[in-house]
Amino acid sequence: MLSFQKLLKGEQISKEDLKKLFNQADIYKDKLANSERIKDLDGKILASLFFEPSTRTRFSFESAMYRLGGNVISLENGASSSIKKGETLDDTGRVIDQYADIIVMRHPQPNSVEEFSKYVNSPVINAGDGENEHPTQSLVDLYTIYSEINTLDNLKIGVLGDLKYGRTVHSLVKILSNYNCSFEFISSEDLKIPNDIKELIERNGNGFNEHEKIDPEVINSLDVLYVTRVQQERFTYYEDYLKNKDLCFLDRKHISDPNKLIILHPLPRVDEMDRSIDNLPCAKHFDQVKYSIPIRMSLLYLLASQN
Amino acid sequence: MLSFQKLLKGEQISKEDLKKLFNQADIYKDKLANSERIKDLDGKILASLFFEPSTRTRFSFESAMYRLGGNVISLENGASSSIKKGETLDDTGRVIDQYADIIVMRHPQPNSVEEFSKYVNSPVINAGDGENEHPTQSLVDLYTIYSEINTLDNLKIGVLGDLKYGRTVHSLVKILSNYNCSFEFISSEDLKIPNDIKELIERNGNGFNEHEKIDPEVINSLDVLYVTRVQQERFTYYEDYLKNKDLCFLDRKHISDPNKLIILHPLPRVDEMDRSIDNLPCAKHFDQVKYSIPIRMSLLYLLASQN
Amino acid sequence: MLSFQKLLKGEQISKEDLKKLFNQADIYKDKLANSERIKDLDGKILASLFFEPSTRTRFSFESAMYRLGGNVISLENGASSSIKKGETLDDTGRVIDQYADIIVMRHPQPNSVEEFSKYVNSPVINAGDGENEHPTQSLVDLYTIYSEINTLDNLKIGVLGDLKYGRTVHSLVKILSNYNCSFEFISSEDLKIPNDIKELIERNGNGFNEHEKIDPEVINSLDVLYVTRVQQERFTYYEDYLKNKDLCFLDRKHISDPNKLIILHPLPRVDEMDRSIDNLPCAKHFDQVKYSIPIRMSLLYLLASQN
Repeated sequence: MLSFQKLLKGEQISKEDLKKLFNQADIYKDKLANSERIKDLDGKILASLFFEPSTRTRFSFESAMYRLGGNVISLENGASSSIKKGETLDDTGRVIDQYADIIVMRHPQPNSVEEFSKYVNSPVINAGDGENEHPTQSLVDLYTIYSEINTLDNLKIGVLGDLKYGRTVHSLVKILSNYNCSFEFISSEDLKIPNDIKELIERNGNGFNEHEKIDPEVINSLDVLYVTRVQQERFTYYEDYLKNKDLCFLDRKHISDPNKLIILHPLPRVDEMDRSIDNLPCAKHFDQVKYSIPIRMSLLYLLASQN
Repeated sequence: MLSFQKLLKGEQISKEDLKKLFNQADIYKDKLANSERIKDLDGKILASLFFEPSTRTRFSFESAMYRLGGNVISLENGASSSIKKGETLDDTGRVIDQYADIIVMRHPQPNSVEEFSKYVNSPVINAGDGENEHPTQSLVDLYTIYSEINTLDNLKIGVLGDLKYGRTVHSLVKILSNYNCSFEFISSEDLKIPNDIKELIERNGNGFNEHEKIDPEVINSLDVLYVTRVQQERFTYYEDYLKNKDLCFLDRKHISDPNKLIILHPLPRVDEMDRSIDNLPCAKHFDQVKYSIPIRMSLLYLLASQN
Repeated sequence: MLSFQKLLKGEQISKEDLKKLFNQADIYKDKLANSERIKDLDGKILASLFFEPSTRTRFSFESAMYRLGGNVISLENGASSSIKKGETLDDTGRVIDQYADIIVMRHPQPNSVEEFSKYVNSPVINAGDGENEHPTQSLVDLYTIYSEINTLDNLKIGVLGDLKYGRTVHSLVKILSNYNCSFEFISSEDLKIPNDIKELIERNGNGFNEHEKIDPEVINSLDVLYVTRVQQERFTYYEDYLKNKDLCFLDRKHISDPNKLIILHPLPRVDEMDRSIDNLPCAKHFDQVKYSIPIRMSLLYLLASQN
């Protein structure tokens, strides 16, 4: 039993929830490795509602549902769908609720998934509501760290890139601040981590430092380096974008000991990092995609079976 | 055995067909309520062809197919599909016929589904061909009435809103006129029920009245009130639309005894009715969505298994 | 065991491969005819990636996968997908590889599927990469000939229409030149078969003739006539298109003995042939669609099970 039936934001996931989710994910990871046929959600239907396209996230959830023996009704691109025409989100919720046992929804509008979910009896998972939240990306990040380092406790976490707007960064830092982690924030002046997050870290009794450029010594002190994309659309002037992007570019030579840390990235990446890093033992950004299946299976199963 | 193998228009559904469809739907409704796993169409494939998007109808059919243990190949938005480029509907029919055991098709062009179906050996269901027909919406409406009132016979049916263009209204009235029902038509002068339908009612020996505004006493005399949307695109002048819409708006105060009737609406709704009506016992417009699954399961099963 | 794990172009398919593929396809053809439930890929997932829409090819693969008891995650129209935004094909490959057991991909860009496949461990099938290759269409063509005539050896093959640009024609001729077949190429001056293909035929010790219009005597000498579409976009001037199209139009009166040959067409057709030909015993262009299911099942199964 998880503490929530609708997963709308990262803060809902308690330490106890995370433990249950990881335990079940570990079971599925082993079964998948042995090509075991799983039927835990046999006969159940997932509604996969993407009101803006996101093939990566959609495929990850749909693959997870099929691996559980379930079925999927899928809206690939709701932007061109009639479902939006004049209909309010509450009516859409009441309708979709009749077609499925569990619902995953992405929508460009912040808080839309929450509004929708109020009128739904089935479990609902927010797969991204605009700039607001994307809690299962945090689950994937956390499960990757847990799988690779065996713990979330007492880690030193570096976060590089766009710390101001990146919703996945905010969720991740908030959750890890419950695990006695300390943080090294590396970003330009323009993209610094918001004050409310720094205050939360302090309230939880943890430390952090801020850096305006990449320092190999700082990198070498980390357990985890989380790299994010600097997005051009955040800047009025293209030169500002270029300057910020270059400041945050992770070079091969920044990494002195590639066995000492792990590197994560929520993907897609454009040119935030030297591609030769892909071949280092620390590179775990594609393993994250692999871990996304058992952890999303775990979430789907625990939500759909408690209903 | 139904009397048709291709369901193209409401008039094809005989009283005998309706009885068989309702009986099978009742069986499925009970099994779904008990979360029983159904495998009546195990291994069968539904082709779900939407040449214009309609997430609601598509999801209803695809959910029904999965609940029967079958699989679905799905065209979400055929408007952007290559299948239409230069190819005639007969060739499309001959091709799709090879991929599936049963076909559901929506298309913006009137009579396109009938043309397509001539070249198909598998069962075909019209899921809406432009302004022409949408016979399974009528099935859903009728099954809702039957489930809630236990009969279709000798009812007093009110129909409110756009009675001129609404294809679902026309099919519903035609079929119910075989069940000794009488009708109260409530619409503005501009949106009155067509003469051929009034003539059919009279030929079948039933009565009807026409009203140009909502009268609480008329509402109070009804068994069923069917509300439809007044569509802006029907009017040249916006003021005409507003006037018509306001005349047909169903207010909470129009309903003196909310236990005496049931209210239906084919959805989506915009602002045809006071939202507080949702909480009354007479509000069955979202139950219709729920009933859509067992009745569509019944139709899919009876058609696919007789092949 | 096939000689390839990624099917990118027709030339990869050896005579030994073709034998294995046909044998397995024959097994599936019989089981489908007996409505036997097949579970050879039970629990497996196909990623069906269409970066440009092609409902016909997509449905054929997805239907084949469901007939094998597998499941499908499907991208209907990747042109509107976020997956392309700034992401390189190698990263897309590494990501999708985590979601599926086998991947089918269509992409408008030549060689894109090959580039993608380099970063994928699972089997990959090219379902068309722009003007470049579409090897499973050749498989369908060959399996149709084999099923209808019982051999590929020593046949006289006529090819009519656009012999210059048609990718399916090139693959087909290349493969059949390994089977001691001779060829009659019928096309206008503008659309003649390329020299490298003529050279390959000669190297393989086979003969060919070229014709600039349809000669009933030539048609009457054939075992197989393969008709292709002349595409307007190949011509700068509309009159040139019309002239070429008319030269290549197959009339009913061109066929003196409709029991002597079989006629194939990769579809969709526009107006390359007299529609009354559809009713002749030689017309096999819609049977090709039917044969596409067991041969694609065979390919999916042999690739996915050797992994």
